[in-house]
Amino acid sequence: MVDGGRNGPENRVLASHTPATPLLNYSGIMSHDPSARRVQFRPSVDRMAGYVPGEQPQEDGWVKLNTNENPYPPSPRVIEAIGRAAEGRLNFYPDPLGREFCRVAARLFDVDPEWIIPGNGSDEILTILLRTFVDPGQRIAYPYPSYVLYETLGEIQGAEVERIVLRDDWSWPMEEARRQLQECRLLFVPNPNSPSGNRFPDEDLLGLLPDRGVLVLDEAYGDFCDEPHGGQLLKSDSAAGRMVVTRTLSKSYSLAGLRLGFGVAHPDVVAAMRKVKDSYNCDTLSLAAGVAALEDTDWMQANAARIRQTRQRLVEALVSRGFDVVPSQANFVWATHPDGEHRRRFEALKAQRVLVRYMVFPECDPVREGLRITVGTDEQVDRFLEALDHVGS
Amino acid sequence: MVDGGRNGPENRVLASHTPATPLLNYSGIMSHDPSARRVQFRPSVDRMAGYVPGEQPQEDGWVKLNTNENPYPPSPRVIEAIGRAAEGRLNFYPDPLGREFCRVAARLFDVDPEWIIPGNGSDEILTILLRTFVDPGQRIAYPYPSYVLYETLGEIQGAEVERIVLRDDWSWPMEEARRQLQECRLLFVPNPNSPSGNRFPDEDLLGLLPDRGVLVLDEAYGDFCDEPHGGQLLKSDSAAGRMVVTRTLSKSYSLAGLRLGFGVAHPDVVAAMRKVKDSYNCDTLSLAAGVAALEDTDWMQANAARIRQTRQRLVEALVSRGFDVVPSQANFVWATHPDGEHRRRFEALKAQRVLVRYMVFPECDPVREGLRITVGTDEQVDRFLEALDHVGS
Repeated sequence: MVDGGRNGPENRVLASHTPATPLLNYSGIMSHDPSARRVQFRPSVDRMAGYVPGEQPQEDGWVKLNTNENPYPPSPRVIEAIGRAAEGRLNFYPDPLGREFCRVAARLFDVDPEWIIPGNGSDEILTILLRTFVDPGQRIAYPYPSYVLYETLGEIQGAEVERIVLRDDWSWPMEEARRQLQECRLLFVPNPNSPSGNRFPDEDLLGLLPDRGVLVLDEAYGDFCDEPHGGQLLKSDSAAGRMVVTRTLSKSYSLAGLRLGFGVAHPDVVAAMRKVKDSYNCDTLSLAAGVAALEDTDWMQANAARIRQTRQRLVEALVSRGFDVVPSQANFVWATHPDGEHRRRFEALKAQRVLVRYMVFPECDPVREGLRITVGTDEQVDRFLEALDHVGS
Repeated sequence: MVDGGRNGPENRVLASHTPATPLLNYSGIMSHDPSARRVQFRPSVDRMAGYVPGEQPQEDGWVKLNTNENPYPPSPRVIEAIGRAAEGRLNFYPDPLGREFCRVAARLFDVDPEWIIPGNGSDEILTILLRTFVDPGQRIAYPYPSYVLYETLGEIQGAEVERIVLRDDWSWPMEEARRQLQECRLLFVPNPNSPSGNRFPDEDLLGLLPDRGVLVLDEAYGDFCDEPHGGQLLKSDSAAGRMVVTRTLSKSYSLAGLRLGFGVAHPDVVAAMRKVKDSYNCDTLSLAAGVAALEDTDWMQANAARIRQTRQRLVEALVSRGFDVVPSQANFVWATHPDGEHRRRFEALKAQRVLVRYMVFPECDPVREGLRITVGTDEQVDRFLEALDHVGS
């Protein structure tokens, strides 16, 4: 994926090779000629493109619809919990297992607390999964186009990465997928998918369980579905021990700044993942905030409902302007225009201080590109549409 | 190391193999017979002992001198900064590079901000270093006895781990060490060392720079030295690009609950480490708190000075009771008694609600064991001594 927006973890440029910054040749010891270097990085790290820090405008006046953040603030109970925790025992280590958080999250999924592992954002849970299941040279898979971070994490672990190219309508090529999944240790599936926003049918997901591997359902956007799901698949007989669900508090709970996510999995899987994680991977403040957030699901649900309403308005407005829009179950929509002028629109919007995400997936045939637009407040969506109308078609 | 205290990241039991919890045999899918399991973990993870969660008494009344936490609270400016950050933009992602924190930390080390990489505790910096430099099968080294987490992190990465056994007086066997360091990608050295508390001479450290690897100076306890050091070695010609210093805010800044540490290294090394780290590895609250903490070094220095004074009292009291104590430059002391009855003392202290760390290193010849005692407040040390006098000799 090549990303015009340059924001968020999806913006790891995989297709092209970003050269590192020119070197200082400090004390003559390091230089860009690898043979001259005394210190060598892992070849896989050396080859990787660097992360391009996100375009996060710091000044006011931007309409920021590019990184799927929630436009509404977190529950006031979260802020209170952080204040209390900050006044407390910050000089002491947190509970290494975050057991109180596990208890609260387990209730949401109707499982025992041993099924829960909290992480420093759900990205850390993904990293832990790779380090628990995948030896270098082994294979992982993910649908393409989707969240390219899976590919970056696979590269860091030295895995072979298999892209399962989705059909034009964003559905799975089931037969081809089953073939590609042989020998796969992990299959990562965002559900709803990004950038498309569609939710995959349960029967497809069960059909994709790798024979000797694990299906990771990344439900970062799960709370924005019309019919929320909460790990039913995970507890089905065929999936038990072969499926991990990951969740984040970044999106529906409005806590992207906090870095807190969690995995839900069979206790044996959780026990193995705990061996791999850093001892104290979650801090006292995040764990306290997370407990308060998950105890106030009403707040989250109210915001999710508002976002679903605004999503409907946004979709209709885009369709009436000639865009094709995938029916979305997430807090963003994927819009394409028959004229193919997505980059021009992205840049013209940006010139008006409206940021959306321009994405192109050159490895698709034909190449796929479009705009991924986060569902903001009604006011933000109005400003976006106004700016879009200034762009012209 | 086998650890009677069972607290903190050092408590990864390496010598013995902890069996996993008995299995539920959930839906008949997972079982302890590996051949019957459909899902397999990495063999290296399967072999590893699980982390034993720390003995962190939650009720009041304990004197907790077992995990080197700072007995004094963090600066009030830190608490204020957390409150401000919590009221702010938690629904937005943090700065992925933590650039404001980098600027403040860089000033402390008199380097450019590009030399700094913040992490989710300095433990995460250690993990990132392994993933940046060490391919599976490659070698790392660390002094023994010291912080056994290095060995656990090496195992997770699939590295060969070389223990360099320190001399009886905790000094380096330089010739032997140089031999063992051939082909090593990373040498981890805590300085001051734990559990001994001694600080290694600069000339030894320069002599230990691996030929084609990196020396990681883990200065978790650096601020407790009589003469604080701040990366002078790092900037010496011979070390540039071949040395990484790690620091934590857990100890001297009284922020163990926050999970914030950082690495200081040549910008080329930092650039490679950034590729490996999770995109948003540090959260908004920690970064804001970290900036406030490093801007109030007076607060930290005052606490460190108090701890140094109490340390002196503690050492004298232990010596007068017949213990041998290593001269300590850290916020703990390593005490051994000629009668060898360390475990009995540990247990008798615990019965009086005084927790210290009992440690035994069976791989030393002869076996080393002793008590590592965190320097608490004067009152806590008084209660410890009182309890010790009740134990009898």
